[in-house]
Amino acid sequence: MPDANGGSQDDPARRFMNLTQMVHWGAAANPNSIATKFQSRSVTWSSMKDRVARLAGGLRKLGLGVGDRVAILSLNGDRYTDYYFATWWAGGVVVPLNTRWTVSENIYSLKDSGARVLFVDDTFAGMTPEFLEQVPALVAIIYTGEGACPDGMLNYEILLRDSEPVEDSMRCEDDLAGLFYTGGTTGFPKGVMLGHRGLWFNGLIVSKACEIDTRSVVLHAAPMFHLADGCLGLATSISGGRHVYVPSFEPEAVLKTIEEEQVTHLLLVPTMIGMLLQHPSFSTDRVSTVKTILYGASPMPAGVLRLAMERMPHVRFVQAYGQTEMSPVVSLLPPEDHVFDTDASHRLASAGKAAIGCEVKILLENGAEASVGEVGEIVARSPGSMLGYWNLPDQTEAALKNGWVRTGDGGYLDKDGYLYIVDRMKDMIVTGGENVFSAEVESTISTVPGVAAVAVIGIPSARWGEAVHAVIVPQPGESLSEDEIIQYCKARIANYKVPRSVEFRSDPLPLSGAGKVLKRELRKPFWEAMDKSVS
Amino acid sequence: MPDANGGSQDDPARRFMNLTQMVHWGAAANPNSIATKFQSRSVTWSSMKDRVARLAGGLRKLGLGVGDRVAILSLNGDRYTDYYFATWWAGGVVVPLNTRWTVSENIYSLKDSGARVLFVDDTFAGMTPEFLEQVPALVAIIYTGEGACPDGMLNYEILLRDSEPVEDSMRCEDDLAGLFYTGGTTGFPKGVMLGHRGLWFNGLIVSKACEIDTRSVVLHAAPMFHLADGCLGLATSISGGRHVYVPSFEPEAVLKTIEEEQVTHLLLVPTMIGMLLQHPSFSTDRVSTVKTILYGASPMPAGVLRLAMERMPHVRFVQAYGQTEMSPVVSLLPPEDHVFDTDASHRLASAGKAAIGCEVKILLENGAEASVGEVGEIVARSPGSMLGYWNLPDQTEAALKNGWVRTGDGGYLDKDGYLYIVDRMKDMIVTGGENVFSAEVESTISTVPGVAAVAVIGIPSARWGEAVHAVIVPQPGESLSEDEIIQYCKARIANYKVPRSVEFRSDPLPLSGAGKVLKRELRKPFWEAMDKSVS
Repeated sequence: MPDANGGSQDDPARRFMNLTQMVHWGAAANPNSIATKFQSRSVTWSSMKDRVARLAGGLRKLGLGVGDRVAILSLNGDRYTDYYFATWWAGGVVVPLNTRWTVSENIYSLKDSGARVLFVDDTFAGMTPEFLEQVPALVAIIYTGEGACPDGMLNYEILLRDSEPVEDSMRCEDDLAGLFYTGGTTGFPKGVMLGHRGLWFNGLIVSKACEIDTRSVVLHAAPMFHLADGCLGLATSISGGRHVYVPSFEPEAVLKTIEEEQVTHLLLVPTMIGMLLQHPSFSTDRVSTVKTILYGASPMPAGVLRLAMERMPHVRFVQAYGQTEMSPVVSLLPPEDHVFDTDASHRLASAGKAAIGCEVKILLENGAEASVGEVGEIVARSPGSMLGYWNLPDQTEAALKNGWVRTGDGGYLDKDGYLYIVDRMKDMIVTGGENVFSAEVESTISTVPGVAAVAVIGIPSARWGEAVHAVIVPQPGESLSEDEIIQYCKARIANYKVPRSVEFRSDPLPLSGAGKVLKRELRKPFWEAMDKSVS
Repeated sequence: MPDANGGSQDDPARRFMNLTQMVHWGAAANPNSIATKFQSRSVTWSSMKDRVARLAGGLRKLGLGVGDRVAILSLNGDRYTDYYFATWWAGGVVVPLNTRWTVSENIYSLKDSGARVLFVDDTFAGMTPEFLEQVPALVAIIYTGEGACPDGMLNYEILLRDSEPVEDSMRCEDDLAGLFYTGGTTGFPKGVMLGHRGLWFNGLIVSKACEIDTRSVVLHAAPMFHLADGCLGLATSISGGRHVYVPSFEPEAVLKTIEEEQVTHLLLVPTMIGMLLQHPSFSTDRVSTVKTILYGASPMPAGVLRLAMERMPHVRFVQAYGQTEMSPVVSLLPPEDHVFDTDASHRLASAGKAAIGCEVKILLENGAEASVGEVGEIVARSPGSMLGYWNLPDQTEAALKNGWVRTGDGGYLDKDGYLYIVDRMKDMIVTGGENVFSAEVESTISTVPGVAAVAVIGIPSARWGEAVHAVIVPQPGESLSEDEIIQYCKARIANYKVPRSVEFRSDPLPLSGAGKVLKRELRKPFWEAMDKSVS
C-alpha cells in the first residue's frame, strides 16, 4: 500500500508504462483488428498477444533472463514488431542493429551489448558464422527469413509454435528497454540506454501529433532499427493501429504498398521524400489515402518540402527533431506551421517547438541560459531522457545532468518558442537519415599511408541532405587519389560513412587557438552556396 | 547516475511527469499565447509561470510545507487554474471542494484532509467563519473574489504581488498531487489520493482524444472542482491551449462565451447538453466554433445525443467513462462511433473502449475473468490508478489491488472490446453529473422520526439523467409527507443529494436472501418505461 505521500516505483502496485501494455490493451480493446500485415501474413491484436507470449516463452527456454539483451539484424517486416514486444514480454532488452553496418561494426555492438540471442533475416544470415566465432555470449540465433532455416539456427515459426506462452515480465517505468547504438564521438558506437517509460511516452506524443488511431494503417518505410521509425511504430501500437511494411525503402514498393494497403501514415527522411517525388510513377492519386507524413532525422531542403506539399496537398506534414538520447523526440513542427509565402513561413526553417512533455533550453558555454535569439547548445529534458550510455559512465556524466540531455547540437529559440538548429557541436553529419560522426571517418582515413591531416565534414546534397566530404593534407611528396581513399574506407566502415567526395590541399587545415580544426571554416563555402539556392 | 538496469524513482535525475511541467513548457514553447482569459483579465503562458511561482512563494510564506493540503471552494474562474498550479509548484496537495456541499460537508472534508490553506471566492466567503471555528488546522484563507477582501482573509492579488517567486518543488510521478472527495458508501466522503503521473497521463490522453492543441480555446462550463472538467483542464494546459470560463453552468452565459471567445472545446454532462439545446436562444450558428464536445459523468439519453448531433453536425462528440479513482478516464467512445441508424449504432449505448494506456477487465464474484458478454464488476488499471483513499487503509485495500481499481460498476465487454455499463454495484446515483451514494441519503432519511425503512434509488430523468428517488416504509400508524422528507434532507445534505420524489409504501421492501434490499426490483418499473421511450 502506498503511504500518504504516494508509493515508490518499487511498489509492485505502481508499476505502469510497461511497453507490453500496448499488446494487452490491443488484445482487449481491438481484438479483431489487424495488428501486423506483411506480404501474405496478417495477425490480429488478439493473436498478436498470443504470439508475443509464446515467443517470449521461446526466449525464456533459451535461457534468457530479466535484463538480458536480444539483438536483431533484419530488414523491415512483421517479425520485427513481434521481436520488440516478445523481448520486452520476456523481460529482455532490445538491441536493433544497423542494417548498413559492416560485419566488424555489428560484432562490436553485439560484444559491447553482451547480446545472448540474435534474430536474423535472409539478408543478413550470411554474417552469422563470424558473429558466432567472435561473440561468445551469443547462445542462439533465431532465423526470421522466409527460406529454409540455415543449420545452427532456430526457425522462428517452429520456436513460436513449440513454446508455451509465459506471463508478462511487466518490466516498466525506468527499467531498461533497449540499447540503441549511435555513432560515437570517439570512433566507437555508444549504446544509448532507453527505458520503458521514455519509449512509451514517445509513442503517445507521436500518436497525438500524427493523429493515429484504431483506423490508421502505418507503413514502415524507413528502417525499423532506427528510432525515427521506432517511435512511429510505438505510436501505432499504443493507438491500436495497423503496421504494414516494405523490407527497405524503394520508391515503387512504397507507392505500391500505400495503394494496396491504403496506408494513412508513414515516416520518411527528407532524402526518401525527394526520391518518392522524383520517381517516374509517383502521382498524387497513388498516395491519396495518406493523411500524415512525419519527417525528420536530417534537415529538410526547402525546395523538397515545397514540392512535397504541392504534390501531396491532402497530407498533414509533421516535422520531428530529436535524437536517440531523447527516445527520440525533442521538438515538433505541426501541420499548421507548414505554410509558404506568409509572415510565418520562416518557421519552416525551424525544428518547431518543444514537444508536449519536453523542455528545451539553450545553454551558453559558461552554463548560463541563452536569451532569445542567442546561439548555444540545445539541452532537453522529458520522460524520454536516456538512462545513460551503456557501460560508459564518463560519457553519461558528460551528456546527462539531472534528467537534462546535452544534444551536442547548437541552436537558438525565437521569441515565440520555435527552435532553430544552427550547428552540430558533436561534429556529426546527417546523411540520408543516418548519423555519421566525423571522428570515426577521420580515424579511418588517418591510417591511410601518406595522410598528414584529415578533416571530415558534411556538405549539402540534394539527395542525402548532407554528404560526407573529406579534406586531406597529404604528407610532403605523397600523392593520393580520391578513389584510393574511398576504396580504403569501404573496406573498413559502413558505406554511408564513406566520403562521397575527397579534396586534397597542401595548406595546413585552419586551426583554432586551442589547436582544433575549425570545421566551420571548411564548411562555409559549401553552405553559403546552398543558402543562396534555397532562399 | 542510474545503474545498468535503470534508475529508481528516487533518483533525482529521473523525476518526470511533474504537473508543473505544463507551466514550464507553456512559458518556453508558447510564451506569448493566452493561457487564461476570464472577464477582463488575460494572462499569457509566460506570465502564468511568473504568477504561479509567486503565488507558490506566497503559500510558502504562509508556512506551507511539502505535502501539505491546500483547499479551494469557488465557482469557476482563472484563479482556479492558478490555484492548481501554484499549489503543485509549492509542493502542496490540492483539495477542491464541491460547490454544492453544505457547510458541514465542507467542514468534514477540510478536517479530514487537514487543509492548512483555503482559497475562497465571493460566493463562499460567507461560510468561512464556521470553517475557522471548526477546522483548527486552517491557518489562512485566501480571498479570490472580485470585491473588497473580507476581514481576516488574504487578498489574492496582493499576496501574489508581494511574494517572491520560488523554485518549483518538482513533485512528480507518484507523489501525491490531490485529494478529490467522492461520495462514500459509508455515508462519509472519501478523499481519493491521486498522483502527479496519473493526472499528467490523463491530461495527455484526453488531449489526444479531443484533439486539443495550441490553437484550442477550452471552456470550463462544468464545475472545476470535479475531475471531469479537471482532466479537460489538464489536457488544455498540457497542449498549450487557452482556458476560458463561465462561473457556473448557465445556458445563455455558455452560449455567449462560446461566441465571444470562439470556444473550440468543452466538457458537458448530458444534463447540460440537454439544457443548452432546449435554451430558446440556442442556434447552430452560435456554437459554430466548437470542434469537440467531451461528455460523460452520467448516462447519455439517446434522444438527447441524437438531437445534439443533429443541431451541432460540425462537432466531434467524445464520450468518456471513468471515475475519480482512475484520475478519471477508463474508456472513451470516439467520434467515429457516434453514428445512428447503422449496424454499429448499438455502440452508442456503450461506454466505448478502454482508453489508451488503460486496461479494463470484468471480474466475476469468484474472482475469475468474465467471458465476452458476461456481466461482472468492471476493474481498471492505468497510470491514473489512484494511490488509495486518504487515511482509509481498509477501504483502499478493498478497492485497489496491484494497481487495479475496482470501480463498483457492473458491466460487460462485447467481442470487439466495447464496454457496456449495466449496473452500479456501489449503489450510486449519477444525477446531473454528480455522484450521490444512496447510503448517505438513506442514512439521513432514516433519522426522520416515523421512518421504518428507506431505500434510495436513481430513476430516469430527462433533465438530470437520473433523479434521486426515495422509497419509504413508515412505522405503523405514522404518517409522513413528501415535502417533510425533502425539507428535512435539505437542511442536512447538499441539494443535489436531496430526493426529487418520495414514495411511501406499507409493504416491506423486497429483500435478498442475505437480507439486502433488492434495489434492482425497485428500479425496474421506472427503467422499463424509459427503455421503451428511447428505443
